[in-house]
Amino acid sequence: MNEHNERTKQRNEEARDADVIFGRNPVLEAIKSGRPLDRLLVARGEHSGSVPQIVALAVQAGVPVKDVDRKKLDFLCGHGNHQGVAAVGAVKAYGTVDDLFAEAERRGEPPFFVICDEIEDPHNLGAIIRTAEAAGAHGMIVPKRRSAPLSGVVAKTSAGAVEFLPIARVANLTQTIAQLKERGVWVYCADMDGEPYDKANLTGPIALVVGSEGSGVGRLVKETCDGVLSLPMKGRINSLNASVAAGILLYEIARRRD
Amino acid sequence: MNEHNERTKQRNEEARDADVIFGRNPVLEAIKSGRPLDRLLVARGEHSGSVPQIVALAVQAGVPVKDVDRKKLDFLCGHGNHQGVAAVGAVKAYGTVDDLFAEAERRGEPPFFVICDEIEDPHNLGAIIRTAEAAGAHGMIVPKRRSAPLSGVVAKTSAGAVEFLPIARVANLTQTIAQLKERGVWVYCADMDGEPYDKANLTGPIALVVGSEGSGVGRLVKETCDGVLSLPMKGRINSLNASVAAGILLYEIARRRD
Repeated sequence: MNEHNERTKQRNEEARDADVIFGRNPVLEAIKSGRPLDRLLVARGEHSGSVPQIVALAVQAGVPVKDVDRKKLDFLCGHGNHQGVAAVGAVKAYGTVDDLFAEAERRGEPPFFVICDEIEDPHNLGAIIRTAEAAGAHGMIVPKRRSAPLSGVVAKTSAGAVEFLPIARVANLTQTIAQLKERGVWVYCADMDGEPYDKANLTGPIALVVGSEGSGVGRLVKETCDGVLSLPMKGRINSLNASVAAGILLYEIARRRD
Repeated sequence: MNEHNERTKQRNEEARDADVIFGRNPVLEAIKSGRPLDRLLVARGEHSGSVPQIVALAVQAGVPVKDVDRKKLDFLCGHGNHQGVAAVGAVKAYGTVDDLFAEAERRGEPPFFVICDEIEDPHNLGAIIRTAEAAGAHGMIVPKRRSAPLSGVVAKTSAGAVEFLPIARVANLTQTIAQLKERGVWVYCADMDGEPYDKANLTGPIALVVGSEGSGVGRLVKETCDGVLSLPMKGRINSLNASVAAGILLYEIARRRD
């Protein structure tokens, strides 16, 4: 298969799927109204008119700002008059890591979190949200960059679970993992070269890091984790679908916590 | 979401994905050559020329024959001149249930099979094939009717595992399950109202029946099984993606067999 075409196809699907608001006034109003936004896209080099004000408000509201090619913006906006800015909507607002701890406390359970490291495929992200909610996790952490937006496809693939699972967005996953460890959470990532998942101690406060199917968990993220969990591969293929692997590990954690 | 449109969209995707041979001579040659065919499609009421001979040869070769609307055939063949017949190719030939038992014996292990009850979504079928192969299953059983053909999408989603996992196709799943039970295999299906999956005895010869996401395992099939396995749902949603649920159960079976 052709990886480049695959990626382009996926990007195009994401673009079609995204809820895009464009033009300076509509974007300004969207930010002011406080509606959940996944990110603000600004045409590279665009600093005229109200654009600096829009960028400042977005930063203030915690919305990530990304410079993009004007052509990409043209495409995303269906060649509408975007005036150099567009905002990508989200089906719900992101929370903070503290919200996740609060949910664990509310349920009187040791924390159980899922961390998605650059899962850009909305179907995989949605399926992991669905399984995490069903396995009893208290929430999910995603990075600001290179993570699928909480779009309609994510909501649908999650079978509605996106509404019920708190999702925190953080600027730097490695820092967040270090902070989780300081707060007493054991952080494991899923990868090929770890200890057998059924031999690890999975009780107590725990967070599971899941990587994308293509590139796995990032090196720095992996080095920050307390341990690596591996699923046995008894056949001739050497990996599982990201959401299936996450499902097996999340349910094993849930089983061991009972 | 609109279920009908969803279904039509899925059907269209399947059609685009399918490897279709059409026209009387090409179809006749394909059957004679012994290349793997998923099914023979015949325009309803078409009995002229070599069509009866083609149907007879297909039946003899074990290829299921299905009457379809001429318009559906037109669509599947891209409005080419199909002369009332088309064959859908498969990426590999189906085996028999005996092939699956032979694989278990070759590996010196008690049989471990997966039965897919009307999984029509090629992505789900491919993901289950991938996980079954990785979990060490000896093979898969699918019904002749209402199962996704072994298409390119299935092969790709399986990450190549379709090449390594024996897949048997049977006319009647309920009869096959009864025969498996006679041969000493415990047959469990996955559904919501069964015993907790982690409390069941999952050692020894075993087959797991997985149903489709929309309709679950068929009533007759379910009644024929020895038991029903359920995954706990600790959140507010009440089901998992079919391939994720299958993955959790297949890995739990693998873990308990070790």
